[in-house]
Amino acid sequence: MQSHTPNPVTLDRGIHVMHLFYTLDRPRWSALARADSDGARTKLEELCRANASACAPRLAVYAGLGGKADLAFMLYAREAAELGRMHHAVEGAFPPGTLQRTYHYLSVTELSEYASTEEDFKRMIQHQDKLDPASPEFAARLAEMNKKAEEYGNYRLYPEMPDWELMCFYPMNKRRAVGSNWYSLDFEARKKLMGGHARVGRRYAGRVSQLITGSTGLDDWEWGVTLMAHQLDAIKQIVYEMRFDEVSAEYAEFGPFYINLRMSVPALWEHLGL
Amino acid sequence: MQSHTPNPVTLDRGIHVMHLFYTLDRPRWSALARADSDGARTKLEELCRANASACAPRLAVYAGLGGKADLAFMLYAREAAELGRMHHAVEGAFPPGTLQRTYHYLSVTELSEYASTEEDFKRMIQHQDKLDPASPEFAARLAEMNKKAEEYGNYRLYPEMPDWELMCFYPMNKRRAVGSNWYSLDFEARKKLMGGHARVGRRYAGRVSQLITGSTGLDDWEWGVTLMAHQLDAIKQIVYEMRFDEVSAEYAEFGPFYINLRMSVPALWEHLGL
Amino acid sequence: MQSHTPNPVTLDRGIHVMHLFYTLDRPRWSALARADSDGARTKLEELCRANASACAPRLAVYAGLGGKADLAFMLYAREAAELGRMHHAVEGAFPPGTLQRTYHYLSVTELSEYASTEEDFKRMIQHQDKLDPASPEFAARLAEMNKKAEEYGNYRLYPEMPDWELMCFYPMNKRRAVGSNWYSLDFEARKKLMGGHARVGRRYAGRVSQLITGSTGLDDWEWGVTLMAHQLDAIKQIVYEMRFDEVSAEYAEFGPFYINLRMSVPALWEHLGL
Amino acid sequence: MQSHTPNPVTLDRGIHVMHLFYTLDRPRWSALARADSDGARTKLEELCRANASACAPRLAVYAGLGGKADLAFMLYAREAAELGRMHHAVEGAFPPGTLQRTYHYLSVTELSEYASTEEDFKRMIQHQDKLDPASPEFAARLAEMNKKAEEYGNYRLYPEMPDWELMCFYPMNKRRAVGSNWYSLDFEARKKLMGGHARVGRRYAGRVSQLITGSTGLDDWEWGVTLMAHQLDAIKQIVYEMRFDEVSAEYAEFGPFYINLRMSVPALWEHLGL
Amino acid sequence: MQSHTPNPVTLDRGIHVMHLFYTLDRPRWSALARADSDGARTKLEELCRANASACAPRLAVYAGLGGKADLAFMLYAREAAELGRMHHAVEGAFPPGTLQRTYHYLSVTELSEYASTEEDFKRMIQHQDKLDPASPEFAARLAEMNKKAEEYGNYRLYPEMPDWELMCFYPMNKRRAVGSNWYSLDFEARKKLMGGHARVGRRYAGRVSQLITGSTGLDDWEWGVTLMAHQLDAIKQIVYEMRFDEVSAEYAEFGPFYINLRMSVPALWEHLGL
Repeated sequence: MQSHTPNPVTLDRGIHVMHLFYTLDRPRWSALARADSDGARTKLEELCRANASACAPRLAVYAGLGGKADLAFMLYAREAAELGRMHHAVEGAFPPGTLQRTYHYLSVTELSEYASTEEDFKRMIQHQDKLDPASPEFAARLAEMNKKAEEYGNYRLYPEMPDWELMCFYPMNKRRAVGSNWYSLDFEARKKLMGGHARVGRRYAGRVSQLITGSTGLDDWEWGVTLMAHQLDAIKQIVYEMRFDEVSAEYAEFGPFYINLRMSVPALWEHLGL
Repeated sequence: MQSHTPNPVTLDRGIHVMHLFYTLDRPRWSALARADSDGARTKLEELCRANASACAPRLAVYAGLGGKADLAFMLYAREAAELGRMHHAVEGAFPPGTLQRTYHYLSVTELSEYASTEEDFKRMIQHQDKLDPASPEFAARLAEMNKKAEEYGNYRLYPEMPDWELMCFYPMNKRRAVGSNWYSLDFEARKKLMGGHARVGRRYAGRVSQLITGSTGLDDWEWGVTLMAHQLDAIKQIVYEMRFDEVSAEYAEFGPFYINLRMSVPALWEHLGL
Repeated sequence: MQSHTPNPVTLDRGIHVMHLFYTLDRPRWSALARADSDGARTKLEELCRANASACAPRLAVYAGLGGKADLAFMLYAREAAELGRMHHAVEGAFPPGTLQRTYHYLSVTELSEYASTEEDFKRMIQHQDKLDPASPEFAARLAEMNKKAEEYGNYRLYPEMPDWELMCFYPMNKRRAVGSNWYSLDFEARKKLMGGHARVGRRYAGRVSQLITGSTGLDDWEWGVTLMAHQLDAIKQIVYEMRFDEVSAEYAEFGPFYINLRMSVPALWEHLGL
Repeated sequence: MQSHTPNPVTLDRGIHVMHLFYTLDRPRWSALARADSDGARTKLEELCRANASACAPRLAVYAGLGGKADLAFMLYAREAAELGRMHHAVEGAFPPGTLQRTYHYLSVTELSEYASTEEDFKRMIQHQDKLDPASPEFAARLAEMNKKAEEYGNYRLYPEMPDWELMCFYPMNKRRAVGSNWYSLDFEARKKLMGGHARVGRRYAGRVSQLITGSTGLDDWEWGVTLMAHQLDAIKQIVYEMRFDEVSAEYAEFGPFYINLRMSVPALWEHLGL
Repeated sequence: MQSHTPNPVTLDRGIHVMHLFYTLDRPRWSALARADSDGARTKLEELCRANASACAPRLAVYAGLGGKADLAFMLYAREAAELGRMHHAVEGAFPPGTLQRTYHYLSVTELSEYASTEEDFKRMIQHQDKLDPASPEFAARLAEMNKKAEEYGNYRLYPEMPDWELMCFYPMNKRRAVGSNWYSLDFEARKKLMGGHARVGRRYAGRVSQLITGSTGLDDWEWGVTLMAHQLDAIKQIVYEMRFDEVSAEYAEFGPFYINLRMSVPALWEHLGL
């Protein structure tokens, strides 16, 4: 069969992402010798340093808020087995049994199939900006829009997430109910519906930063949504407002929501009273 | 990354709220030395004293009724990380493993978007009270209504909950079913439906005191409902009566219900036979 | 805040009821010294003697049948905190950890809002019995019907349940589905539907004795149903037959079913091989 | 209250049935002294011998296949408390905690209300067989059909299940959905639909032997289905084929499926490596 | 009853398949002596060697990715009890309690009832290839198509799965909802819908290799789907693309998704840090 070291498993484009949520087993933790609890902190700090790329490999540490999880981690890796090893390294930093898995999610970065294309841009420039397709202004405007789209595409595929105070994660599906089935709509109808959704998102620039990762066939929902924000009400407002959007109101189904506070390892230790 | 002490995370308006429900691990509790069980009571009493503001920071202690939970806590905090620390302090007051989390809910206070506005008040005064908009009676009536609305808004954002004998908590959603979708209704239709709901609530003044907190994007339901009452039948009646309200009958979905008895720490200890 | 002893919490009319279901932790039980296992039996017998009113306070003991629960208890109390203390006393009669909670239900007794009123009786006597409203026969018949209704109302509020061999418990809701919504029907339609249901119940007199308690806002279903019977097929038949009733076929949703054998404490001990 | 020995609880017709599914706690089992593990086998063999009637009392032993359960038991008893005692005796044959309950089901045998009646037989003989109701052939044919029906009724009420290699158990409901409600159909429509179902079953004679037991009001589904077979594909084919039957396609809801291998106690011990 | 060794239980055609998913109990594992942890690896390697047929008996080992499972196994056996013994042998290779079952699935290989028949081929050759049914070209083409179909049928019944880097498993049902019921469609309609599905699958040749196994009546879904691939985005793309297929969009219901990395036993040990 395979050799001892399996082949690297990479994506055509983009990276692998894992969200991990844990509660702390307090009886086990309180039975640790000081050296063991300090050792866990040191190992976790080393893992953070060793996985501190802007994009991947990257390990980000959070305190869970609300009782679902005490600790949370977000992992980014270019190679699939590397992602698994990072996962086991995080758990291995803690003495056996002190972390209890409560939730976890596997997804990969992806481009949106509904993103505007060069053809869309040309139509916009001609019909909205009223520029002559033969004019140098047209070409300049098109080049600018293509550049922005490429930058956004890079962000979607190789995200460098901001270290804002709060991280919200939730998975979601598009509905396939009898009488309301996203997957029976044609592409143009879906693209138009997604456009309204994107407009709401843009109005939260600076307050909420969002990453959509794909997980159809990989985990139990079709997408993972990661929101970074400075305040809980910004998260509440954007999710609430989007719920009235036709595409969400009619076609979205939401999984559990996880709210997390971004922390350095020492701050996390202090926050949890470890 | 961040410094050791993260930035404070506050809301634009309002406070953070957590409902916490626990069962007691009796084998672990019964194995405690007297000093450890007494120590837990003392620590919890100290936490209550240190978090005894009328609004926030505030910690309220309950005995659960009905088998779902033995103990319950309600936490109010202005800052998000402070809420998390209060949560861990409550759990830390008890010897490790003696409390088992059974349910918990994270929400924030918020104003209702369907609250009557100054424009609504003007219309009411002109068309119901038949006062001339130019008259001093009109202006006086409007000032009075605005003042009441401001007071109610302050209560919604910075609640000072009465210490009545019973606390009922349940989370809820507005329905997004095929054929009955709250989020596809326009604002005026939703405002009108919510009005009927509010009228039922007002008839229970003095018997049931209610707080609605928002949790869209923060926890697994869209709102948390906290009812304070003196008798279980008052809670049963208001929830039952509201169920016939069009807005509930057609659009409400309810999560689990938790009934709790307000207790001082010594009374709780006695109630649980600790 | 409150004094050491909280205020009594009673209902305007009726009593509080708790159904409790447990499995036995056999490893813990088998590790007990004989004195501890005998002590549990003695304490439970004392609790039964101390709570042996015809109505409340009352503790009834059962063996669970079918694998969901090994032991079951039904508790009746006039005061809410007393109900909680009875609950903890039952659990406290057993050595710590030997009982594992599997299900529990909190409800209160209540009158049916669809019960026939004096006006209904008058109509029946006039139109069915063809009696002259001015006649003494009319008045006698009316007095008799009012007396029966009052007795039944007393039974509903202050039940004295027969000690038959079997107890079946299940919670239920009225449906609020899109296209079939009990809470959107008007009162007369609901009263008429409930009438058919009651007629089925009456045909099982002597074979099945039934108590409906209310739990909207108190626990996760709207009603609890307790059936006492001498044989399992009587329970199966009444529940099956009622399922064809329009009110059940269209509007009822059922929770889990628990079948229990009424036992004295020594018989329970023998049954479980303790 | 009751005496030490409660009254016997029997059915008007038929017997009580319990299906029991367990996983083995391997850490506890591996810690047993040889005498204790051998003792369990001996006790279970004794229980099998003591409950080896063709119908009831009867205990049949299985190995679970597929990871849901390691061991399974099927219990038949005429009296309800006896069924409970058999259940506890099976669990008591194993050292405490070595069996972990994973699923269990309580039901009773029953006649089908849709079974053909003497009137149905007369109609068939007259209209299909074209026999003169006054002829001796008619009477002979009718007597023969009545005898077969009585035999089948006896099998349904007092089943003597064949010891084939495989046992499949699953519970099921008839659907009460909005727009497709079995319980709103009239008796004739239901009887006709059930007839098609029975015809499929008859074609599997010799390959699949089936027992339907009733559990409305007794456990969480309305019926339990037990299939005995020699091969897994026979089970798969009959369940798959019936799914296209109008009565199943439109009105059946299925619970979990459990596949089990019939084993003697020594063969089970060998199979599980005990 | 049965002899000590039960009769072999085989299928008419095809083999039995089990998918097994486990988490590792880290506290138990870390407490093992080196000899015990090494012994587990040796036993698992021996099992792999003893079950290394191209088809059955076969044991394939995986690391789970994403937090649902740490280890996964895929088992193929011709005889049912042998499958159960392989299952217990895999678990028995590990010290008691170090593996915790998280998911498992039982299915059997089967031919698709919608596969093209000789009659379909004849129609295609005549109407698409425009060949004269009497011509030698027609006969050659038909022979070739029959041969391919036979090969594909053999693969479906006796699969020799490629050892690609990734294995994805998920179970699925065909929908039986009110208003969208696969089991109420006639055979021709179903066959036509399945044809579109197959066409999508063929376009992923070389990137994704697929096995559909049947489990109606055997486990809680109707089919198990196993996908082998080299990259996660290939799995995501095929599952996502098929979701727009009419047969999936309208009629498919999906269970949980499990992603696994194919590993040799030493590579698995290294990956998990054992």
